Amino acid sequence: MTSYLFTFNQFFDMVYSETIKVKIKSQSFSDITGNVEDIVRDSEIEDGVCTIFSVGATSAVIINENEPTLIKDLINSLEKVAPENGIYHHPENAYSHIRSSIIGNSKIVPIKDGRLNVGEWQEIMVFNFDIEEREREVVVTVIGD
Amino acid sequence: MTSYLFTFNQFFDMVYSETIKVKIKSQSFSDITGNVEDIVRDSEIEDGVCTIFSVGATSAVIINENEPTLIKDLINSLEKVAPENGIYHHPENAYSHIRSSIIGNSKIVPIKDGRLNVGEWQEIMVFNFDIEEREREVVVTVIGD
Amino acid sequence: MTSYLFTFNQFFDMVYSETIKVKIKSQSFSDITGNVEDIVRDSEIEDGVCTIFSVGATSAVIINENEPTLIKDLINSLEKVAPENGIYHHPENAYSHIRSSIIGNSKIVPIKDGRLNVGEWQEIMVFNFDIEEREREVVVTVIGD
Repeated sequence: MTSYLFTFNQFFDMVYSETIKVKIKSQSFSDITGNVEDIVRDSEIEDGVCTIFSVGATSAVIINENEPTLIKDLINSLEKVAPENGIYHHPENAYSHIRSSIIGNSKIVPIKDGRLNVGEWQEIMVFNFDIEEREREVVVTVIGD
Repeated sequence: MTSYLFTFNQFFDMVYSETIKVKIKSQSFSDITGNVEDIVRDSEIEDGVCTIFSVGATSAVIINENEPTLIKDLINSLEKVAPENGIYHHPENAYSHIRSSIIGNSKIVPIKDGRLNVGEWQEIMVFNFDIEEREREVVVTVIGD
Repeated sequence: MTSYLFTFNQFFDMVYSETIKVKIKSQSFSDITGNVEDIVRDSEIEDGVCTIFSVGATSAVIINENEPTLIKDLINSLEKVAPENGIYHHPENAYSHIRSSIIGNSKIVPIKDGRLNVGEWQEIMVFNFDIEEREREVVVTVIGD
């Protein structure tokens, strides 16, 4: 008689995903660092990466310092490239799409020992660049072992 | 006598990759959403992520709305930061490289139930910022299980 | 009697990570392409992706041509969006954070046959946008099989 036992859990757990929903005012953001940390913990993945993707063509993800005056400065800089009251061909919210395209909506963070391997001032923030308040969805996918 | 059967396919199929080739005019783009969807289907990967990488230092990838007047507006915004007829130290196509660096050429999209988990207006577009028409290559890699 | 042999190495090696440390002057960069190639080789991963994440909210990663006059041009373009001597609400280094946010600090490169699958002029460069020289850390994570 031969007995053997396999646990394939570590392979089946290579991928774990959750979606965050959050209401955000126009040209504002929500800090989702805590939510992402929770998802990484839930994934039980120790080493790998975590991708953060904001759904919607007028949203974006920034990994940087969550400091209100800094965000004001950042919006002012984006105003130079894609001003809110600029002249555009696309109706209504062209500047929202352009800000989203320049900042980007897909980011990736390394995971080490089950935690985000980021710097002290690197918070994960979702921006809503659309012309009005919107509920934004963010898909967080953890990959690793 | 002991008989047993293992299929390791799910592990060997964790990574799947294909390269897209497409001719694109200067300061223009190609919508490759359909190609990427096909590659994800071919990969038979149900959950994970799909990375999109455009080869070449004057190319970039944008995940946003494919609407011609919006793209015109986007190019106008990039004109402010890196004008086509600006004065540069680097010969010929400095503005092409700068536009590529600001937009970025590596993006990532989540996969859920074998499909791109993106918003209604989030098309995947490859841009050619070089000074003339070029055939651009895009490496699409699907990772998951 | 039943004999069988399993090697699970290919599964356990799905993720490999190393951290690069490098001193970089203000508004300058370090080319880490060789370091990243070494890490990919060490990982023994043949197919997949390699993520490059610079730690610190005033750093960024660019995949583009390492040509000194081009980098000068790029910095001049960023000067337009977030000038070094601009007026900001955030004390001291607002422009450093804004440049980091626009360029982005998380990038991804495909791996094929154990090598970076990039174009001839796509070097991997870490930028230090902070106001003084700093030792920057870059987490390189290779995922695949």
